[in-house]
Amino acid sequence: MEKTLFEKIIPFWASRGIDQEYGGYLLNFDENGKPYGGTDKYLVTQTRMLWGFSHLSRWKQGAEKDSLYQHARQGLQFLLNHFWDSRFGGFYWKVSRQGDPIDKAKLTYGETFAIYALSEYYLRFGDKTALEYAEKTFDLLQIYAADTLNGGYYENIEENWERSKDGFYAGDRKSLDIHMHLMEALTTLYQASGKEIHRRKLIESIELIMRHMVNQDIGYGYNQFDVSFHKIPAINIYRTWNAERETNEEISVPVDTTSYGHNVELSWLLDRAFEVLRQETPEYRPVLRKLLDHSLQYGYDFEYGGIYRDGIADKEVLVKDKEWWQNFESLVGYLNGYVKYQDEAYAEAFERTWVFVRDNFMNMEVGESRQLLDRQGESIVGNMGNAWKGIYHTGRALSECLERLTLLNTREDEVDD
Amino acid sequence: MEKTLFEKIIPFWASRGIDQEYGGYLLNFDENGKPYGGTDKYLVTQTRMLWGFSHLSRWKQGAEKDSLYQHARQGLQFLLNHFWDSRFGGFYWKVSRQGDPIDKAKLTYGETFAIYALSEYYLRFGDKTALEYAEKTFDLLQIYAADTLNGGYYENIEENWERSKDGFYAGDRKSLDIHMHLMEALTTLYQASGKEIHRRKLIESIELIMRHMVNQDIGYGYNQFDVSFHKIPAINIYRTWNAERETNEEISVPVDTTSYGHNVELSWLLDRAFEVLRQETPEYRPVLRKLLDHSLQYGYDFEYGGIYRDGIADKEVLVKDKEWWQNFESLVGYLNGYVKYQDEAYAEAFERTWVFVRDNFMNMEVGESRQLLDRQGESIVGNMGNAWKGIYHTGRALSECLERLTLLNTREDEVDD
Repeated sequence: MEKTLFEKIIPFWASRGIDQEYGGYLLNFDENGKPYGGTDKYLVTQTRMLWGFSHLSRWKQGAEKDSLYQHARQGLQFLLNHFWDSRFGGFYWKVSRQGDPIDKAKLTYGETFAIYALSEYYLRFGDKTALEYAEKTFDLLQIYAADTLNGGYYENIEENWERSKDGFYAGDRKSLDIHMHLMEALTTLYQASGKEIHRRKLIESIELIMRHMVNQDIGYGYNQFDVSFHKIPAINIYRTWNAERETNEEISVPVDTTSYGHNVELSWLLDRAFEVLRQETPEYRPVLRKLLDHSLQYGYDFEYGGIYRDGIADKEVLVKDKEWWQNFESLVGYLNGYVKYQDEAYAEAFERTWVFVRDNFMNMEVGESRQLLDRQGESIVGNMGNAWKGIYHTGRALSECLERLTLLNTREDEVDD
Repeated sequence: MEKTLFEKIIPFWASRGIDQEYGGYLLNFDENGKPYGGTDKYLVTQTRMLWGFSHLSRWKQGAEKDSLYQHARQGLQFLLNHFWDSRFGGFYWKVSRQGDPIDKAKLTYGETFAIYALSEYYLRFGDKTALEYAEKTFDLLQIYAADTLNGGYYENIEENWERSKDGFYAGDRKSLDIHMHLMEALTTLYQASGKEIHRRKLIESIELIMRHMVNQDIGYGYNQFDVSFHKIPAINIYRTWNAERETNEEISVPVDTTSYGHNVELSWLLDRAFEVLRQETPEYRPVLRKLLDHSLQYGYDFEYGGIYRDGIADKEVLVKDKEWWQNFESLVGYLNGYVKYQDEAYAEAFERTWVFVRDNFMNMEVGESRQLLDRQGESIVGNMGNAWKGIYHTGRALSECLERLTLLNTREDEVDD
């Protein structure tokens, strides 16, 4: 696992992911690690790469650390020079490879990842400008994205911070996905700033997810909601959810369709938030376990290993394909469960998932994970990178696992690379 | 009525209310219009005076207008020089007569009146600095006071924008009073700025009041709530609600204790908000009428005239004393009801209230309204001014009535002074 992280994934992105010509990051790499398709730069992946190089520098010293710092620093400069909207404030959603704005929208999802990356950069390298921009972006979300009628945040917002239209533009929708990633970002922001207001908003985001978005009895998350948090069938959403196509297709009619891997990710992100808050929340401990247990009971493939993509609550699995990010996040979720609750079932799930990830998702020759596999592990989409896929899920998952394995005093050779 | 406003109330405050020595406004005047008690300056009344001199200048031209402008301008300067917190942002709650901070708390109630006054000053005199401070204060409330879990705003906030303690400091409470005045302020802010975000937050505040704080069937407002908007018995609250004394006395055990005059004020303030929004809201029209009808059915004194102070929902009147602000606001509410719904009952209530106000509340010799009367109109507290009582309720009410009377083409002599 250590070798996969340090000898495959980091070098893969360090050697290909830096845009030497214009700055920022390149993301589109095919199954052989060769560039393909467009070079437009999205806020979500630019910031995820910035987060990744910043965060992973924690494992290195000296020249190696400095090299990761340089990869992060040029990404920060590109972000501030080309994504920041000096007129309305906030970061654009999409710019060209050269850095000219293509889509100036202010998606809560994207702004959230900017907060996450900028705070992490500050934590690792002490750059106050990065933290200032993180706080400025936080302030803008509070002013323009917070919903003071229903609580929570609007998610789809235009260039001038007006709510997007309803329907496919989803001005009238909220989602677990975006509130979960907001919680993740606020965790790191609070860690970086230590400010009471960041702490307060982090707690509010946790309570919101627990109150409206999670079935605490069975242990799974709902997907989409109206602005008042009534559960509604998920649709494709312009820009963020499955779509740049303008269709109003419902992708999952039952409102209790759930993503097993997303739930496992939620479990460990919540745990992380509680750690940073230094707040004991015994009433939520059962929920964190149920999110893991639910995935093992309903969404796990004990025959081939790995976690399925989608299913209906406590009923059938809908899609048995396996997606990279859900399986990488599940590594962390199960291992975290084992660390916290000493339940061997989680250790087994971790190990079984790791074997599946290592042998099927990882393209060891090229150095990154494939995107989508069928149940047995055959590649469906073998690309190493795309507009949404960078170093964030893969790099973070292995780093989080290594940290927990160290904690467990597990000898390296028990988890073979 | 015109003479009462222009020859009594405005001259009363113009001649006594300006602090010629230190700037800002003086408020404590006894029944003879002589200064009494302290001279500490509270944000709520400093801004209400600033609002008053600004707003009432609309009726004047030339030297008379300029004189009101000077009264407002010096108040603005004192406000910006002595109340603004350059460290944490926002306005202090209380300063000494000289302008030294005494209580640096950031009460939502006070900040809201600052927004109201600064926006009005901009509307009347075009001073962009005033609007900038109004918008800055709006932003701070969004960042620090908005509750992103439950919706609405926290109300009791300390110097550094941390929520106040629970209980008597009321960090764990919300109220109709403060959300109503926030709506009032956002109405004027939106009118001044024309910005979509101010419009959006105004609409959210209206919807919030309607959803959680008003009994729409019977037509009255509840008083205090926990942060999730569950109705709870009202208590005295440090700084804002009946109290600078530290007691935790419950002042009204039934949660459906209501202030008739506050409900009538809410009726016309909502109407005003809809006007400024240029938004037809037919679904709320019945509620606006019910707020008036409820007060007439349960809280009005048809024998002596005027509106009682407090009562229980659709049951008995609790306190038959009459308070100045409730009766002045009721003038506007009833007259507005007559203008909007052509119901003679409202015209009669307006006229009956005006007779009671003119003959009992108004101290025509001195030039302002008494504070509190018994049912028959005998003075209980005859003071013309205090830390909370200035030109705002009396001056605004008569100005709003004059505007509506003009609209009705009512001849002046029908409403005798």
